Amino acid sequence: MMFRTDLAVECRELAGKSLPAGVSYHEEIREDIKTISMHIQDDQGSHALGKPKGHYITVETPPFSEAGEDIDARLTAVSQALSSLLPKDGCILVVGLGNSAITPDALGPRTASRILATRHLKGEFVRAAGLDGLRSVAVLSPGVLGQTGMETGELLAGIVQHIHPSAVIAVDALASRSLDRLGCTVQLSDTGITPGAGVGNRRALINQESLGVPVIAMGVPTVVDALTLAADLTHPMPDDEPTIRKKIEPQGRGMVVTPKEIDLLIDRAAFLLSLSINAALQPTLSPQDLLSLVS
Amino acid sequence: MMFRTDLAVECRELAGKSLPAGVSYHEEIREDIKTISMHIQDDQGSHALGKPKGHYITVETPPFSEAGEDIDARLTAVSQALSSLLPKDGCILVVGLGNSAITPDALGPRTASRILATRHLKGEFVRAAGLDGLRSVAVLSPGVLGQTGMETGELLAGIVQHIHPSAVIAVDALASRSLDRLGCTVQLSDTGITPGAGVGNRRALINQESLGVPVIAMGVPTVVDALTLAADLTHPMPDDEPTIRKKIEPQGRGMVVTPKEIDLLIDRAAFLLSLSINAALQPTLSPQDLLSLVS
Amino acid sequence: MMFRTDLAVECRELAGKSLPAGVSYHEEIREDIKTISMHIQDDQGSHALGKPKGHYITVETPPFSEAGEDIDARLTAVSQALSSLLPKDGCILVVGLGNSAITPDALGPRTASRILATRHLKGEFVRAAGLDGLRSVAVLSPGVLGQTGMETGELLAGIVQHIHPSAVIAVDALASRSLDRLGCTVQLSDTGITPGAGVGNRRALINQESLGVPVIAMGVPTVVDALTLAADLTHPMPDDEPTIRKKIEPQGRGMVVTPKEIDLLIDRAAFLLSLSINAALQPTLSPQDLLSLVS
Amino acid sequence: MMFRTDLAVECRELAGKSLPAGVSYHEEIREDIKTISMHIQDDQGSHALGKPKGHYITVETPPFSEAGEDIDARLTAVSQALSSLLPKDGCILVVGLGNSAITPDALGPRTASRILATRHLKGEFVRAAGLDGLRSVAVLSPGVLGQTGMETGELLAGIVQHIHPSAVIAVDALASRSLDRLGCTVQLSDTGITPGAGVGNRRALINQESLGVPVIAMGVPTVVDALTLAADLTHPMPDDEPTIRKKIEPQGRGMVVTPKEIDLLIDRAAFLLSLSINAALQPTLSPQDLLSLVS
Repeated sequence: MMFRTDLAVECRELAGKSLPAGVSYHEEIREDIKTISMHIQDDQGSHALGKPKGHYITVETPPFSEAGEDIDARLTAVSQALSSLLPKDGCILVVGLGNSAITPDALGPRTASRILATRHLKGEFVRAAGLDGLRSVAVLSPGVLGQTGMETGELLAGIVQHIHPSAVIAVDALASRSLDRLGCTVQLSDTGITPGAGVGNRRALINQESLGVPVIAMGVPTVVDALTLAADLTHPMPDDEPTIRKKIEPQGRGMVVTPKEIDLLIDRAAFLLSLSINAALQPTLSPQDLLSLVS
Repeated sequence: MMFRTDLAVECRELAGKSLPAGVSYHEEIREDIKTISMHIQDDQGSHALGKPKGHYITVETPPFSEAGEDIDARLTAVSQALSSLLPKDGCILVVGLGNSAITPDALGPRTASRILATRHLKGEFVRAAGLDGLRSVAVLSPGVLGQTGMETGELLAGIVQHIHPSAVIAVDALASRSLDRLGCTVQLSDTGITPGAGVGNRRALINQESLGVPVIAMGVPTVVDALTLAADLTHPMPDDEPTIRKKIEPQGRGMVVTPKEIDLLIDRAAFLLSLSINAALQPTLSPQDLLSLVS
Repeated sequence: MMFRTDLAVECRELAGKSLPAGVSYHEEIREDIKTISMHIQDDQGSHALGKPKGHYITVETPPFSEAGEDIDARLTAVSQALSSLLPKDGCILVVGLGNSAITPDALGPRTASRILATRHLKGEFVRAAGLDGLRSVAVLSPGVLGQTGMETGELLAGIVQHIHPSAVIAVDALASRSLDRLGCTVQLSDTGITPGAGVGNRRALINQESLGVPVIAMGVPTVVDALTLAADLTHPMPDDEPTIRKKIEPQGRGMVVTPKEIDLLIDRAAFLLSLSINAALQPTLSPQDLLSLVS
Repeated sequence: MMFRTDLAVECRELAGKSLPAGVSYHEEIREDIKTISMHIQDDQGSHALGKPKGHYITVETPPFSEAGEDIDARLTAVSQALSSLLPKDGCILVVGLGNSAITPDALGPRTASRILATRHLKGEFVRAAGLDGLRSVAVLSPGVLGQTGMETGELLAGIVQHIHPSAVIAVDALASRSLDRLGCTVQLSDTGITPGAGVGNRRALINQESLGVPVIAMGVPTVVDALTLAADLTHPMPDDEPTIRKKIEPQGRGMVVTPKEIDLLIDRAAFLLSLSINAALQPTLSPQDLLSLVS
């Protein structure tokens, strides 16, 4: 099967016209922003969609690139979706997955670099700065397997055992099937990260079972796999697959389709995600305050 | 017509099996490296290939990404091709075209940032440092129209009139038709830059006619236009074009196909081009010396 | 003389307690922001202060690093000062001086990268986007002599003759005498850039005489020369100078004093300058609109 | 006490002319490169020098900035010093300390980004690529407390317990007392990192006691504290200290003295350190191979 997507809403489209058993689906539109809540309730639903059981929230926004766009509405939508998936109390560990040196894969690290870390703030200083009442937040961008020699899941397990967060937020660049979703869709879920997800085809499994705490995955599609686009355009028979693969991935190098302005797409998506995470984690601070604290 | 390529050798393939009248073609292989010299001699050849009259040299190398690869052979091939197109004397102005903030378009500026500028070196200092005998070189990365508000051709015309170079070398990221050429092909030509070339679809005409001095264009394909790939896969009738365009370029945003490791491709291509230009311009310095002088 | 400063207000302090003849001085405080207007009226004033004749406006702000600070007041102050020095009509060429690869010298290029270029916007598109009525603006960051092999003044002269701006704004990183001015002072003047100014000790003279149009210089101190600090601390006799110089500049390498967070200082200063320039040049656009148009 | 240095050789100079009891000292010069081995043997020596007991090796090289310099000799010297401190077998965890977004503090992360991670390479692939026989290496740049909310020592303890390296190499930017050591000295020691060391005044204790495995610290001075320079120039009485501190650190911001070309210094030092670490860890690979594998 050559179609690759990390988005539950696209898996649902691929599964056919009618909603599979074991899946609930709800959508809501407010100020040009559509929020879709899907719940894969059982193994039957999971099998039909090829995704783990759990809740998926998809926020579809107008293209990020439209100048003069007010980001308040999307910030509110994403931030509320995140809040609904997070435990109410306890320290949150925000993890930026991906390789900061590869532009289409840099969404996680760029987002993490703008998250307000507070876990170390203590005592007199905090009161003096008017920062008491902040939620405890730790942040890490561990890099990818090829850079570190360590599976990200393994590395996170060690850290989670030490700092005991109540949940992990894992931010990652995603692949979608449709080009018009690039930069325009935010997916959140409580299922964590599964092998093969993300732009870099991570091998790690990062979820509640592996880490012992809830893992909220959060991402924006930044690429379409070139093989997926090719399959979409040509509807190949299984026999044709090797020929297409040879044409699309010469020398076995993975090829992706992106807007030429991929750098801009990553910047804007990281900006939206970081603002939304900060707002969900620190409801006592205004967006203005948050902006001045993180850059 | 949906096929887009900046490469003369691909235009030749598109034009049919036999060589069009008015075009000469010669190829030579040495140590895994194929060098193709094409000469579009007259209007008939120019019309058949859709490219301006002039000389085109294409150096096809193994993929840049192969670890442990010796770059000496490709350096020699590119550097010799460049030397054959350059005037023997006089100051050379090297121009890096493209937008340094857009990764697939940053080849020109990245290459230019590693060119040894010498035009300002004079007198006692030069002799003391053992640098006399260097060819005079000036370097500029002017940015693109959207950043500067000035047509690059217009801007260069002003500078050329002031510093009177004997030739301009214009380095630019190219679009190819085939994915397997990305990062693996260097094209040089004495025809300059024509509107529509380059990853950013430059509007500028930069050639001997517009600047008054020879313009050597030099580049490496860094992307395939997604529309070109789609056309290649589907062989559409003219009527299908709007449908495909709508699917491939949602909201009119240009989409490109690149290796996921586009950042690495750009780095390696800029490294090869800058070494080759420095070697062609300063034959009295060793590659070792050039490396230590430019970074 | 070991004291080095690019700031007229510090030259005035160095010149003694009373105001020299030929110099006028006026200061005004509004919302924690002090604006000082100095006019060096004649040769006597110029000689006393060691600065060219002309108008100097200095805006002193609280430290940039204070979190949560509202930038509106400083934006207004700098933008008004700039407007008072600019011609009312005609195209403006904004030039970012300095080397973008050297952090303390990167203020000019970073500022320029956020200036809204409009000179190329024409016709139907402009009206459709509601952008008619914009002032014509061109932007360039030419790099420094060691990168380009061309004197910046020479290069700008060629461009000015082609595009005929009504004035040039030249943005540059400055050196101050006092550490507490780093990042907290903006100087504007109608005297242009004189050799020796800027963090990189530019050799170029860039002023109305050399370019034929008014040149507004604008900058923020990002470093104190280490020699200046040493002289300030030790009040050396002329005989001591070689000893101090040998200690402070081993191997003749220029040493500077900066905040450890020099990267942050540059970012914030470039943000303030770019916003102020955009606001002065495009009074019909709101700061919100300008922000969304330039990044 | 206002003198701050992370270098044992400078502590020794500060301690007086004769060598304190409990300290051994040996120096050796080869091809312009001086290697000093100091051993702080007991508490008396430790107290006299203000440094933990252990071995310190200092490699003093000509300035990094000299063009055309051959780096082979310094590579050999640093690599041999490192080998002498490392256990012969087992996985090595290389940690880049510091903040990659603050240029003078970015030495650790920049070095780590060029270390060849091998711990994940296994099985058929390794044999096919001729990479069997490589030493197992893991790499991490965790960021600093203000970015992560986690003490680096705490974070590393969690990871060390999971991957059980035989030793940790911790790379950090250092502060020296003398300006002429900036970029020209490499210090290695088996004492780990002590609070207050590094350009960012780390609070973490990272040593054999805290992590349970040997910790080799490795660094290059990239700054002189401005207070240290001021004290060196003025020899202040204790009473003068507040006055000097107020002048040097306005608003309490830490000020440092660096070469203007701090970016270049960091690049070259990170290049030397990464080459040296790779060579010490993978003696079966040539420098040429290592270069092609890490970038």
